[in-house]
Amino acid sequence: MKHTEGLEWAAHACSLLAALPPDTSLPARLLAEFFDLPEPYLAKQMQKLSAAGIVETRRGPRGGYALARPPAQITLLDMVQAIDGPERQFRCTELRRCGPSGVADDKYLRPCGIARSMWRAEAAWRRELAGVTLADILKMGMQDTPPEQAAKALAWFHDKLSQDTTAKE
Amino acid sequence: MKHTEGLEWAAHACSLLAALPPDTSLPARLLAEFFDLPEPYLAKQMQKLSAAGIVETRRGPRGGYALARPPAQITLLDMVQAIDGPERQFRCTELRRCGPSGVADDKYLRPCGIARSMWRAEAAWRRELAGVTLADILKMGMQDTPPEQAAKALAWFHDKLSQDTTAKE
Ligand code: FES
Ligand code: FES
Repeated sequence: MKHTEGLEWAAHACSLLAALPPDTSLPARLLAEFFDLPEPYLAKQMQKLSAAGIVETRRGPRGGYALARPPAQITLLDMVQAIDGPERQFRCTELRRCGPSGVADDKYLRPCGIARSMWRAEAAWRRELAGVTLADILKMGMQDTPPEQAAKALAWFHDKLSQDTTAKE
Repeated sequence: MKHTEGLEWAAHACSLLAALPPDTSLPARLLAEFFDLPEPYLAKQMQKLSAAGIVETRRGPRGGYALARPPAQITLLDMVQAIDGPERQFRCTELRRCGPSGVADDKYLRPCGIARSMWRAEAAWRRELAGVTLADILKMGMQDTPPEQAAKALAWFHDKLSQDTTAKE
């Protein structure tokens, strides 16, 4: 049971979008550049976030990705499910019905104890993830990001976004 | 984030071993037959359980796999980690340090908020899994297994184990 690295990318892309001034949107190209990631792979994650209604695409000269709702209304669980899928992590193939001792399907009244226990643990995991919003992550980021990094990021955006405007004028 | 089906196989194999009378062991061949699984794949899972010290191999004419310790001392977490590995499910590649805004490594004092939140959720998941033992699973199985299945299983084992003895006499 492992997550793909796409989750780290997507979550960081979302927290970057959450940190931007309102009405700013970023094309996948700039997001990829900011994190030094291959654009096609990051774009794939952004499409998943978009399909899940977490980000939206804005058109126009300053177009690109933006959060589709306020950071306080996007949970870590939303992002995890957008990237990894909403399915349960433990999939029960009803192994107990297989082989020489299996009996008719209607004799099994509920999922087996192994499946129930696995799903109970997943529910605890999901509850934790649902309790963290992008607003919380942003707040943690504010506390943890080295001031030098914040300054460099700001300068980079200023540079990039003014370049984009200049190019279009 | 998904488990492989090997986990369902391994957990069921362990609970079958837990249900057997003491001093009974089962070769991978019979375990595979009981669950109607391909022997080489099941054998691979049994080897992982063995490497993790959950099952052991007994030699001799009635040899095969047996639990290495009492069912009350084997947790679901032990089995999950034996099969899926003990690593964290969320792996942080320190994405925040990448790209134009990254700063020197020693400026980052602790893992980022996304990683910490993911790991906190994993800890909750792990706590739940650690709270369920094979003895609990066996008890749930006693309550849930259709009586017809228990009878068929018993007859099958009786048949198989006496065949094995006959063959060796
Ligand atoms: S039958 Fe699927 S986990 Fe038990
Ligand atoms: S740097 Fe890895 S999750 Fe944030």
